[in-house]
Amino acid sequence: MNPMVCSVYVEAEAPGLQDNTGDLDRLQRAVAVKLGDGRPLGIAYECMTTVARAFRDAGFSGYALLNNLELSWMIVGFSAENPDIIAGMALDLGTTHLEATLLNLHNGDILSEGNLENAQIEFGADILSRIHHATAKRRQQKNLAVDFQDPGLDELQHVVVATINELADILAERAGLSTKTIHALSVSGNTTMAHFLLGLDPFYICREPYIPLFNRAPVLYGKQLQLAIHPMAPVWIMPSVGSYFGGDLISGILASGMAHSEKTRMLIDVGTNAEVVLGNSEWLIACAGAAGPALEGGVARMGMRAGPGAIEYVSIHPDTYELEYRTIGKVAPVGICGSGLIDLVAALYLTRMIDIRGKFRNPDTEKDVARAAFMKKHLVKREGCLCFVLTGEDGVENCGDVVLEQIDLDAMIRSKAAMYAILTTLINQVGLEFSELEEIIVAGAFGRHINPQHAKTLGMLPDLPLSVYRAIGNSSLRGAEKVLLDEAARKACEQIVSSITYLELNVNQEFMIRFSGARFIPHTDPALFPSVPFFNPEGS
Amino acid sequence: MNPMVCSVYVEAEAPGLQDNTGDLDRLQRAVAVKLGDGRPLGIAYECMTTVARAFRDAGFSGYALLNNLELSWMIVGFSAENPDIIAGMALDLGTTHLEATLLNLHNGDILSEGNLENAQIEFGADILSRIHHATAKRRQQKNLAVDFQDPGLDELQHVVVATINELADILAERAGLSTKTIHALSVSGNTTMAHFLLGLDPFYICREPYIPLFNRAPVLYGKQLQLAIHPMAPVWIMPSVGSYFGGDLISGILASGMAHSEKTRMLIDVGTNAEVVLGNSEWLIACAGAAGPALEGGVARMGMRAGPGAIEYVSIHPDTYELEYRTIGKVAPVGICGSGLIDLVAALYLTRMIDIRGKFRNPDTEKDVARAAFMKKHLVKREGCLCFVLTGEDGVENCGDVVLEQIDLDAMIRSKAAMYAILTTLINQVGLEFSELEEIIVAGAFGRHINPQHAKTLGMLPDLPLSVYRAIGNSSLRGAEKVLLDEAARKACEQIVSSITYLELNVNQEFMIRFSGARFIPHTDPALFPSVPFFNPEGS
Repeated sequence: MNPMVCSVYVEAEAPGLQDNTGDLDRLQRAVAVKLGDGRPLGIAYECMTTVARAFRDAGFSGYALLNNLELSWMIVGFSAENPDIIAGMALDLGTTHLEATLLNLHNGDILSEGNLENAQIEFGADILSRIHHATAKRRQQKNLAVDFQDPGLDELQHVVVATINELADILAERAGLSTKTIHALSVSGNTTMAHFLLGLDPFYICREPYIPLFNRAPVLYGKQLQLAIHPMAPVWIMPSVGSYFGGDLISGILASGMAHSEKTRMLIDVGTNAEVVLGNSEWLIACAGAAGPALEGGVARMGMRAGPGAIEYVSIHPDTYELEYRTIGKVAPVGICGSGLIDLVAALYLTRMIDIRGKFRNPDTEKDVARAAFMKKHLVKREGCLCFVLTGEDGVENCGDVVLEQIDLDAMIRSKAAMYAILTTLINQVGLEFSELEEIIVAGAFGRHINPQHAKTLGMLPDLPLSVYRAIGNSSLRGAEKVLLDEAARKACEQIVSSITYLELNVNQEFMIRFSGARFIPHTDPALFPSVPFFNPEGS
Repeated sequence: MNPMVCSVYVEAEAPGLQDNTGDLDRLQRAVAVKLGDGRPLGIAYECMTTVARAFRDAGFSGYALLNNLELSWMIVGFSAENPDIIAGMALDLGTTHLEATLLNLHNGDILSEGNLENAQIEFGADILSRIHHATAKRRQQKNLAVDFQDPGLDELQHVVVATINELADILAERAGLSTKTIHALSVSGNTTMAHFLLGLDPFYICREPYIPLFNRAPVLYGKQLQLAIHPMAPVWIMPSVGSYFGGDLISGILASGMAHSEKTRMLIDVGTNAEVVLGNSEWLIACAGAAGPALEGGVARMGMRAGPGAIEYVSIHPDTYELEYRTIGKVAPVGICGSGLIDLVAALYLTRMIDIRGKFRNPDTEKDVARAAFMKKHLVKREGCLCFVLTGEDGVENCGDVVLEQIDLDAMIRSKAAMYAILTTLINQVGLEFSELEEIIVAGAFGRHINPQHAKTLGMLPDLPLSVYRAIGNSSLRGAEKVLLDEAARKACEQIVSSITYLELNVNQEFMIRFSGARFIPHTDPALFPSVPFFNPEGS
């Protein structure tokens, strides 16, 4: 391990008339000898007073605290005793949520965890409306001064910095530390969020040819961003590949380990977009497409993000039609999240409440008595269209019920079709078959909660043994943790960025054809899904 | 030439759908190719917005402005046209005066010059009383917090920064520039002044074993010191060797060129102390002693620094006793500076108004009629002691007259004796003779104004041909200019610092013996000064 900040024991000779080396020169000389790696060593101006005083107080021996930067070392602290904890904060800077862990850089122990809603939401729920806000003044201005800074951008920066500071306070408090002792921060976020954090103009990000102001940020210091952590804490921003392939994904690739193995893997991260990476230590190919919203609860009228009251699990017994569901936090249901939706639609298909096009079947023409009874209990008509009342059983829709409409089903089918089309287009691009994959890694809340069997039933994920699928949770955060703890991981990010090929799907004919073919359950070509029961379009 | 800041022309490819490199990554890529020296290249966070905008506005080609740091390059600006001027400020940060030049780093042209009194004088005329002020609170405090900052030190820092800003404004205005466009600052000052500028605790500088907090400062930025110049202008502080051998002397050695030649030279810099360096490109030996005050007008009651109204030149004709003097600015005399004092005392000796011990001779016992007449015109009695009235001719002292007292003469003799003792102790230390020196370089106002012949007459400087002596003016400032313009000069400073041996005179027996021997004019051993007339102690 080679963490971003570390301590080194030094014993310097006490000064005398024969050795008039300055205190800090003396310290640097001793540290350089100890490090012995020839990398230049400096001291942060902001820390000179405290370091010099602590060095003297400790009698010229003790533990120097060092920022381990890419090409140099920087002394930022000194103490007589080796600190038990050198705290570093790893942050997943999401568009809607910030999630962070506080690590002990000595050993990688997790000291505390936490998350907060991104307060930027007040300026727009989605990235595009925030870019709009951040460029409001600038879009009116004709001849832009070279140092013009949009007040909207300042606002967004200020708000996200305040949120990070709040989260840092929470983490520090939970770990029994002061926020000022957080000595490093790694940030993994999409390209636009990184621009907001640095207060840099995102104007061209959403305009063809979609060029960010930067992909690689310099290493900053807490102080430069007005962060409440240690002023000289290095702030390491995950590099991005382009406007629509951000540091959060680089972080995910890093966390997945796929870039470190000769075996080919696929990484699927579903957020607002579905982002997919395929490859190994030799090559990486990536693409993204709008497959996500329906799966994250963004489209269904009753859809919601995974949170208290969200139905996250649904089952309907294929023989008894017994319906079960579970909410997050075991409270009364208020909506349904992605995993619940996949469970529900897969169950509706397997119990033949919907047909292969994803349309509700007519209960009036149903011949199976038990199924007809169940359908009558749960299907109601709203403005002439059938809806499935998940939380009621009396054949009517009560206020507060969680209801799935045909329009939601249609969106779900489009999303799953897009997802499968993305996966097949990508794998076809490199001339492989799904069966040749070592692993399919599913990231995010989506990956943690969905039942891959049900996703396969819908034809959303390929029909492979369940053992091929692996959930890795918040891979963006896991990657951010890795770079805090290991210099090799920081270097690997550079390597990943430079080895990625990006496949643009918006103009891809093959993708459009595959998308059409995937708009049935499980697929127009059922042979692709041998383990999924196939019902002919006309019903039984 | 390899200045601290330079511009480089780059032509980057315009971005497109096939090349989504971020704007600043694109610029850095193009600059790195152009530099081609493999040194890491970064961009200052504070400049990212302006650089990115200027780069786009210029159509992705133009001139990048670069900080040329020791181990890396940093982009700090961009413009479509090559700027005519890249301004850099060289500063001699003196205890009493600040003197600076503004240079065009493109070609070394001097754009403007200026100087200001060091406003810190309100907290004490000398360094020791300022250290006292800077440590007032800290000396009372028992258990000092590790981050305690003395308010007195803050004051001193604030005042010197304000003075530098005022001087920067003056230089910029004289050059027709804005202060913000000063892109670099080099600072050459003594060790304590460097501590004050950085706001770093000078407490141990004046306490045995006299250890500064730092000898080598990190490269800072204008912004970090609240300077009014460009926020990312590198601020380069000359390294020092110890508490009493500061960056101003390293700068002087650099400016003298003595460390670049195989021939051995001596550098004499007279300020509050006389600081002397001997050596060549192989070795350097240095020492310092309290020889200065009388020579800089610090002791004589009518003494003053070289400035308007200071008598800088005096002559008395050896036969006619015609007395001439000249003041700086050709205004009415208000005092006498070092060069005038040396002229005067040498003339008094040659005209035998004083004896070899530096005592006024009694006009009443003088046998030479012309001399007796002259003595009666200029020597008056004050409280029973003879004084020489330089500006009057009537045998009485009028109000406002410039007068030399016996006490001043005594101080002058001690100073000249100390100076000669320093020089002889130093040269003896390395087993050389004065005659083996290639050159004796005399720095400062002292070097610029004194007549080496008169200094030889007094036995202050060795009796060598005048061609051996060279005046180089403000060598501290000249060195600061060199480091702005040439990277090799910056590296040479490190080399100089590490090759200097410091000879401590305070505890040196040989020095004390030599000091006693030098307390006569020209010396107790007149054979050392064959070109100087010797008069026996009893007069003619």
